[in-house]
Amino acid sequence: MRPSLLALSLTLAAAGAHADEGMWLPSQLPQIATQLRDAGFEGDPASLADLTRPPLNAVVKVGGGTGAFVSDQGLVLTNHHVAFGVIQYNTSPERDLIANGFVAADRGDELPANPDFRVLVTTGFDQVTDRVLADARGRTGRAYYDAVDAAEKALVAECEQQPGYRCSVANMHYGSDFYLVRQLELRDVRLVYAPPEAVGNYGDEVDNFMWPRHSGDFTLLRAYVAPDGQPAAYSPDNVPYVPPAHLQVSTDAVAAGDFAMLAGYPGRTYRHRMASEFASQVEWTLPERVALYGGLIETVEAAIGSDADARVKYASTLAGLENGLKRAEGELDGLRRSNAVATRQADEEAMLAWLADQPAARATRADITAAQALLDETEATRERDQLLGAIARFPQLLGSAMRLQRLALERGKPDAQRESGYQQRDAALIEGGLKQVQRRYAERVEKALLVDLLTQYVALPPAQHVPEFDAVFGGTPEQVRANVDALYAGTTLDEEAERLRWFNATPEEVAQADDPLLQAAARLQPALLRLESEDKQRAGELLRLRPSYMEALIGYRESRGEAVYPDANSTLRVSYGQVSTMDPRDGVRYLPLTTVAGIVEKHTGVAPFDAPRPLLDAIAAGDFGSTADPDLGTQTVNLLTNLDTTGGNSGSPVLDASGQLIGLNFDSNWEAVSASWKFDPRYKRAIHVDMRYMRWLMAKVYPAPHLLAEMDLPVE
Amino acid sequence: MRPSLLALSLTLAAAGAHADEGMWLPSQLPQIATQLRDAGFEGDPASLADLTRPPLNAVVKVGGGTGAFVSDQGLVLTNHHVAFGVIQYNTSPERDLIANGFVAADRGDELPANPDFRVLVTTGFDQVTDRVLADARGRTGRAYYDAVDAAEKALVAECEQQPGYRCSVANMHYGSDFYLVRQLELRDVRLVYAPPEAVGNYGDEVDNFMWPRHSGDFTLLRAYVAPDGQPAAYSPDNVPYVPPAHLQVSTDAVAAGDFAMLAGYPGRTYRHRMASEFASQVEWTLPERVALYGGLIETVEAAIGSDADARVKYASTLAGLENGLKRAEGELDGLRRSNAVATRQADEEAMLAWLADQPAARATRADITAAQALLDETEATRERDQLLGAIARFPQLLGSAMRLQRLALERGKPDAQRESGYQQRDAALIEGGLKQVQRRYAERVEKALLVDLLTQYVALPPAQHVPEFDAVFGGTPEQVRANVDALYAGTTLDEEAERLRWFNATPEEVAQADDPLLQAAARLQPALLRLESEDKQRAGELLRLRPSYMEALIGYRESRGEAVYPDANSTLRVSYGQVSTMDPRDGVRYLPLTTVAGIVEKHTGVAPFDAPRPLLDAIAAGDFGSTADPDLGTQTVNLLTNLDTTGGNSGSPVLDASGQLIGLNFDSNWEAVSASWKFDPRYKRAIHVDMRYMRWLMAKVYPAPHLLAEMDLPVE
Repeated sequence: MRPSLLALSLTLAAAGAHADEGMWLPSQLPQIATQLRDAGFEGDPASLADLTRPPLNAVVKVGGGTGAFVSDQGLVLTNHHVAFGVIQYNTSPERDLIANGFVAADRGDELPANPDFRVLVTTGFDQVTDRVLADARGRTGRAYYDAVDAAEKALVAECEQQPGYRCSVANMHYGSDFYLVRQLELRDVRLVYAPPEAVGNYGDEVDNFMWPRHSGDFTLLRAYVAPDGQPAAYSPDNVPYVPPAHLQVSTDAVAAGDFAMLAGYPGRTYRHRMASEFASQVEWTLPERVALYGGLIETVEAAIGSDADARVKYASTLAGLENGLKRAEGELDGLRRSNAVATRQADEEAMLAWLADQPAARATRADITAAQALLDETEATRERDQLLGAIARFPQLLGSAMRLQRLALERGKPDAQRESGYQQRDAALIEGGLKQVQRRYAERVEKALLVDLLTQYVALPPAQHVPEFDAVFGGTPEQVRANVDALYAGTTLDEEAERLRWFNATPEEVAQADDPLLQAAARLQPALLRLESEDKQRAGELLRLRPSYMEALIGYRESRGEAVYPDANSTLRVSYGQVSTMDPRDGVRYLPLTTVAGIVEKHTGVAPFDAPRPLLDAIAAGDFGSTADPDLGTQTVNLLTNLDTTGGNSGSPVLDASGQLIGLNFDSNWEAVSASWKFDPRYKRAIHVDMRYMRWLMAKVYPAPHLLAEMDLPVE
Repeated sequence: MRPSLLALSLTLAAAGAHADEGMWLPSQLPQIATQLRDAGFEGDPASLADLTRPPLNAVVKVGGGTGAFVSDQGLVLTNHHVAFGVIQYNTSPERDLIANGFVAADRGDELPANPDFRVLVTTGFDQVTDRVLADARGRTGRAYYDAVDAAEKALVAECEQQPGYRCSVANMHYGSDFYLVRQLELRDVRLVYAPPEAVGNYGDEVDNFMWPRHSGDFTLLRAYVAPDGQPAAYSPDNVPYVPPAHLQVSTDAVAAGDFAMLAGYPGRTYRHRMASEFASQVEWTLPERVALYGGLIETVEAAIGSDADARVKYASTLAGLENGLKRAEGELDGLRRSNAVATRQADEEAMLAWLADQPAARATRADITAAQALLDETEATRERDQLLGAIARFPQLLGSAMRLQRLALERGKPDAQRESGYQQRDAALIEGGLKQVQRRYAERVEKALLVDLLTQYVALPPAQHVPEFDAVFGGTPEQVRANVDALYAGTTLDEEAERLRWFNATPEEVAQADDPLLQAAARLQPALLRLESEDKQRAGELLRLRPSYMEALIGYRESRGEAVYPDANSTLRVSYGQVSTMDPRDGVRYLPLTTVAGIVEKHTGVAPFDAPRPLLDAIAAGDFGSTADPDLGTQTVNLLTNLDTTGGNSGSPVLDASGQLIGLNFDSNWEAVSASWKFDPRYKRAIHVDMRYMRWLMAKVYPAPHLLAEMDLPVE
């Protein structure tokens, strides 16, 4: 049996390539204790090793991001943008909490969050690799995939039998190790303190991903439980949750070079992907995405023309395409600038050279070769896969028809055997999506978009063609146009009532539907299922084979005295580094602390630079009290560090050398968009709210002395 | 008789508001010796007091900018963009010196400049206030103006009787003092060394006014004289000019905070203008220019439409309008950001309060009141004046007609009495302008432009109307359109031969011309002459009255222990300060030294970021020898200082504390566009070529060891 790779990597005194790179599992921290201390950490790294014990269990999942308990009465600090849904839920024309912010005068004044909002406290994190892989071992491909999937579902179902808990299985190092994560699910969350949007989201999309920033992107919530201490839905009888630990907001100054440490739930990184995957991302995926999205934007724009109604309906689609385009361009620029492909290639070659000298590594080498062959194989149809992905994603009516047909198919099975996303628990989401269509659909635009994608599809070489698609849409641009016209002329899926009728129909009724789009979707479905099955076959093989690649990589790193953190997978990670300048280009330096002067500089009076009058007045008054920066002689706003973060780290607490809370992560810089693939120490930075800004706002601008007192902070 | 204001200001130990502000006359430097030494200057300020003696007479006028002798054999260092005409003149398709640069192998290889290119060495700078004002005193208005004009012309004519000299009269403090400037006119100038344009103008318009910069904007010329040492036109027999002094290029390192001093010929500043002129500039002139130019751009663009030929013809006009618009917007932003109007207003009020307490200042106060009234008066017709100025400037054919009529009028007078610009010496320039018209004229566009301006004119209130313009163009937009159509339908001035025929015709023939545009110009001419005369009347009065304002200002500053430098007027000035960072906005710092890494970062392979292969190779090789910066460990390129500069300072030498040459000024930053009115120490910076970059290019990239040796510099 293969030894635990994670255990292997944990035995190392890590001397990673870059001191600042790393999304470490807490259990790895004792092994990198020397580096942590060298970087300036004053605590005991061993105290951070268990994420289910204090202080790391003060760090929680909040909504779609991260947060932390900051009092012993369940007060949770997270980003304004993470808690935005809660603020919006409590906003009405009469009481605009988005515009005006909110300060709960006392506990009774705190406002219940939307019922689906959650705070999750991790209480278990146990290795379950053997159980997950027990049935999979000896199998290959689709069977391996299904065995892992079934084992994970069984573990989760078993774990969730305990009321009040939500469970999941986390997969480390691409199938090398599996952990069962058990989280206490706090369902009564209330809004306690939010700055006005013009403070909490100052700069909005204009400043997004940009430094220097001037945003007070924080909000305070409070978690409540039933009087018996158990998680419960909102009730006026509930009491504040007493967390197992909470963080202390610092009252010290912060300066460039200071040690900083961040804990949170980063979503996905790809840094340990194989060299060929790096090359594919840079040389094909990203440039093709740029081309595809750029073309779709032109097509949609041309189809909208001067139709104001269509413009409104496609505003969100266009914004999504433009955002995707911008991100792809940014990621491409970053990966090229960092020379990511060549660096990963040289690293992999060195690893393989090392591996060739290892005893008994023949099976490992064979697995790596097989994985490489599988990746090469997927490239044969990547153009088609990209186009079919876009066809399933962008057209609203065709997409609805496909979802209705798939739903009909899945409903024919017992719930537990249905595909994820089509189970009973997913029904509300599907129904909501079918209702949404109306707000994002105009026939002329959808047809133009679909014809654009299908025209690209018919131009593909025969080897990439799918018979069912050819049969439904034809083999020439002219046939495509005629077929799309006919499908949309005959369908009634543009009516919400019709879509919901089919949503509620029996599988047999859907199968016999006379709607041309539903019929087309029925003819396409075998192809989609076949392609999905091929995907799972490959995914299963990769899940089986990649652990050999990771074993080699970790072994190679070990030979150089370096530890390897698993790629991010939404589990709790810790990164450490410094409050840091950044030189974005020759001759320009970003300073690591912004000040309130920048708020005034940016202020135009027009959103997103419409600083509220009380804030401008307080800045002009210059009464910064205990929160002023001693060196700068003014009030700081945001902090820049070189901490390693990615999406999901929103709301992550940033701690100083003594473990006190100095910042709240809310963004990273544009140059770091490519960091999900490659950490480049010159360009990777994270952007935080300086806790002194929060303290000043709560002391002087939108006062909440009772909350400062609850957090053991000075009230001025 | 009024005492010399300049002398008054020179008696002061200046403690100016900002240590870095000031375009000082060399004669003022001994008086600010303490500040100079405090700033780090190690030499004797007294040695800098006479601009006609070493070392300042090493600083010369070159083409439209500044330069300096850098060897005892007439080698002149100036900007690539200042010497660009010389490089262009020597460029042919077979030998592209613009693209490839040029290194003269020896003296015989040096290339003659275009015959009108000059290097001017100042040999005399004598106060002539009494002579200039002798006849003017006691007069007012137009008579005052004419008396000053006549006295200046007489002084210049007398001075230029000595062969080889060009003379001019410089007016300090707006008519307070006058200096006769005598300059040796070196007419045989040769090209010695120029980097390729992609080095000398790296970044071009994209980087213009921007920091960080990476431009090797320097060129070496050599001045030659006849064997007898006298200035002469090019001759192969000529010999290098032995300058009275030359500067030594430094071999020391340069770092932030180092003392720096710059000498050159700044063109125009307005910092001592009256408060009402500041208000008018910010509240009317600049916003109106933005509106006018913005509107003209739209009009010209619409008239061009898809006409490719017209687009080429109006490319220069559009570029000029867009540049003017951008500069006006930049100046407006800067003056508002610096709160220039309120600051100048408060300063003037304090001055007037001080003046009220001065004995025997009644006449001074009366003059200031009168000057203020005159300025207020000009505001009554400023809308009209702006429009008539644009009508005279932008339409090519109407402008040609106006110039031809004026020329005919002036030719009826003895040459000496003709208006400047219409004397015999100006004939070639006028003829060239008439030829140029063809390349910048398309009937439809010119008519649209003229109709736009005249339509704005007819909408003005009656008090601003000019009868002759109304008579020629009509009083309604419809009449304007019809009259413009008729004028352009009938004219033959769109033919070059016709324009030149009228240029060579007698005044009588022009007066009897049957061309409708020439006839229209003849009817407009009395109005233009009348308005011009009113202008001169006001200019004469201001020339008479402003010295009282300056006397009060200087006296007031004196009472505070501050010296006053005269506003720039193209005479030699010295400014001092430091190699300096700049924080353009909160959280962002510009570093004062750029490096070759920035050239690589900006390189796209496409102009203006097409760094030549030899440069990229040399950067990659990293062989920086004695020119590497010891702190940065790499090759620097450009330098940022807080020196006080304006247009005309191109090519100014930048000296260190010991007087050695460390930089060559070539640009300033965008934030400093408003510095011609207001020096704001936070934003005013000047941009220089680091002499170490020049030395490295000459040592390692485009080698010229013989020139390095001539400049007493190491050859690697």
